[in-house]
Amino acid sequence: MVVELVSVGTELLLGNIVNTNTQFLAEKCALLGLSMYHQVVVGDNHDRLAEVVETALKRSDIVILTGGLGPTEDDLTKEVCAEVLGMPLVEDPHTRERIEEYFRNSIYKEIPDNNWKQAVVPEGAIVLDNDNGTAPGLILEKDGKAAILLPGPPAELYPLFMKQVYPYLQNLQPEVIRSQMIKVCGMGESQVEDTLLDLIDKQSNPTIATYAKTGEVHIRVTAKAADEEAARQLVKPVVKEIKSRLGDCVYSTKENETLEMAVVRLLDKYGLTVTTAESCTGGLLSGRIVNVPGASDVFREGFITYSNKAKRKYLDVSKSTLKKYGAVSEQTAREMATGAVFATDSDTSVAVTGIAGPDGGTEEKPVGLVYIGTYMKDTVRVEQYQFKGNRAKVREQAVVKALDLLRRSILDNYR
Amino acid sequence: MVVELVSVGTELLLGNIVNTNTQFLAEKCALLGLSMYHQVVVGDNHDRLAEVVETALKRSDIVILTGGLGPTEDDLTKEVCAEVLGMPLVEDPHTRERIEEYFRNSIYKEIPDNNWKQAVVPEGAIVLDNDNGTAPGLILEKDGKAAILLPGPPAELYPLFMKQVYPYLQNLQPEVIRSQMIKVCGMGESQVEDTLLDLIDKQSNPTIATYAKTGEVHIRVTAKAADEEAARQLVKPVVKEIKSRLGDCVYSTKENETLEMAVVRLLDKYGLTVTTAESCTGGLLSGRIVNVPGASDVFREGFITYSNKAKRKYLDVSKSTLKKYGAVSEQTAREMATGAVFATDSDTSVAVTGIAGPDGGTEEKPVGLVYIGTYMKDTVRVEQYQFKGNRAKVREQAVVKALDLLRRSILDNYR
Repeated sequence: MVVELVSVGTELLLGNIVNTNTQFLAEKCALLGLSMYHQVVVGDNHDRLAEVVETALKRSDIVILTGGLGPTEDDLTKEVCAEVLGMPLVEDPHTRERIEEYFRNSIYKEIPDNNWKQAVVPEGAIVLDNDNGTAPGLILEKDGKAAILLPGPPAELYPLFMKQVYPYLQNLQPEVIRSQMIKVCGMGESQVEDTLLDLIDKQSNPTIATYAKTGEVHIRVTAKAADEEAARQLVKPVVKEIKSRLGDCVYSTKENETLEMAVVRLLDKYGLTVTTAESCTGGLLSGRIVNVPGASDVFREGFITYSNKAKRKYLDVSKSTLKKYGAVSEQTAREMATGAVFATDSDTSVAVTGIAGPDGGTEEKPVGLVYIGTYMKDTVRVEQYQFKGNRAKVREQAVVKALDLLRRSILDNYR
Repeated sequence: MVVELVSVGTELLLGNIVNTNTQFLAEKCALLGLSMYHQVVVGDNHDRLAEVVETALKRSDIVILTGGLGPTEDDLTKEVCAEVLGMPLVEDPHTRERIEEYFRNSIYKEIPDNNWKQAVVPEGAIVLDNDNGTAPGLILEKDGKAAILLPGPPAELYPLFMKQVYPYLQNLQPEVIRSQMIKVCGMGESQVEDTLLDLIDKQSNPTIATYAKTGEVHIRVTAKAADEEAARQLVKPVVKEIKSRLGDCVYSTKENETLEMAVVRLLDKYGLTVTTAESCTGGLLSGRIVNVPGASDVFREGFITYSNKAKRKYLDVSKSTLKKYGAVSEQTAREMATGAVFATDSDTSVAVTGIAGPDGGTEEKPVGLVYIGTYMKDTVRVEQYQFKGNRAKVREQAVVKALDLLRRSILDNYR
């Protein structure tokens, strides 16, 4: 089964926005075991859109179109698809009702005339209710092919797709696909691939795919089988083997758990509180911890000590350490981590000091040099890193390594 | 002149990465006044790639291809384009030399055999040196059309495009395009459009385009003319008129200046230091300030006071205020802003306290309620906001408003 994605919108052709919808849909289609050979972006132009839809329906089984379902005259996706597939447009009473209902609950007093256009659908279409907007999703089936029309705004598209299109696509597949995520930190992609080489080489069912993220590698194990249980049994031993080979580098096997969520989960599990002390990352580390709902149980305060004076005042870093070794040094990181715990009476801490650039680097201490320290059970562990890339990239990598060092220290001390 | 973008890469079809290259190239092409009607993504597959290139060269004048120029056998872009355009492949001695030079300066001792593939180019191609990798960029011209082949990694693509392809495309245009950015904060997109309605309606040369960003609106004024000076004279009065209508909402007219850069520039101009005090944003605000190179001149320390205890200890927020009004209140924001200045002896401060969700909201204080305070010249100004969206969205909007409140307070007090 081959699926093709068509994004409709002039704002994409002008480069006003990044096409994140396409990544979302492509990832989900891959997860469903569907093949994808083409993705196309085209503007709200009748002739060009018609040509793109015709070509897509010729070479692919399913065409998912996003965008161009709005209430204005510019929006042509539904009209063009109905024309290409030879389906007349008729009013859908259910959608008309839903639009009335939608506006009753909104701040608008009257329903703009335009919006009635959205209650018209190609005859015979499967109508997918949109809980977050007026334009319904539509599935047009003809001659063993399907065009699936979805609204462009991600807040409408994502829930509509997951709730109604994902199960539809799943049903088209004769086999069940089951997939398990393994998230890894502290190993590069090539190192992961080397470690799993024999498993990857002999893969066919389940397949093993690796994805590089900043400071992380995500591994997806995917199996096809006649039923759910059989697919699960194919995935299970491979996941077990991968986990045993990668050991503590695996921080999660949950699809939606981020590194900071895993760290907060561990802190919570062992009843620990953490304090952050940041120099070059300037709050990005604490910002990620606080992004986890419920972080307040384990995180109460953090320090951004960008100047030496602040390091001394709030973290009790000694004047002589700063003078002798400098603010970016193992010794300063050590004292920052210690000071953060003593200042706040927390159980553990994580401290970051480094040279993010573009200025401030020297031969001895180049841009990208970062020290990360963590205090736990009366012991401070400090690691030295040399990151590549621009200021933002150095800081982003430092945050990942800080979260990972904290995670490993908890495992080493409490597990 | 019509340009088409072709991205080559299986990782895009699988949804492993977001196609940011396409947005980058589309925006630059729009800036050059080039028309774009199609963007296509295709995998590293000979037949499908050949068909996509043929179609693109038929319907467009210039085809920019990214990706598939690597050293492995999978990489086919150059070979397929040479075949479609009927150009034999020959070795380019200059590129061979450049690859040798590249590896001399790298950590690799030997040049992998694969890499010599990258020294082979279609005969007659314009070779574009890649300063950040081994694969050169290539321009293949034939029958009034051009295929431009560029490496996929953004760190190679962006500088190569700006340095060598942008001027090439500029030269193809008979007219000069000149464009000026106006960046706005504190007004929604529709409000900006209403304010500029008559200007936008009568636009043709220059054109006025608005782009919505989180908490910001960017306005681009673009003129075409026979020469640079004439284009500049067309842009100038329109920019002046827009700036006068939008007043202090305009925070920058520099292409690459972010909101935090504008804030740091203002602080620096008036010799002010700032301290941050963050609750729900948890370090994201300071993280953005520290992202500006040279921020250390104006920012020395920040507090993340997530717990009430931390608010009391570091910012001297009174127990009775927290008890009477709660941590998310105008009064607490006021005391946080004041406390931050007094604790650190800085000139000004910005404090954020709010309910980011998903939990913690009540009827009286719903999720999304955020108070932002700034202390300046013995006066505290506090603003109340009600943001929409999930936890990350609420925090992101709060950071933008905090930076903007600080910016406006500086203007009000020091200008």
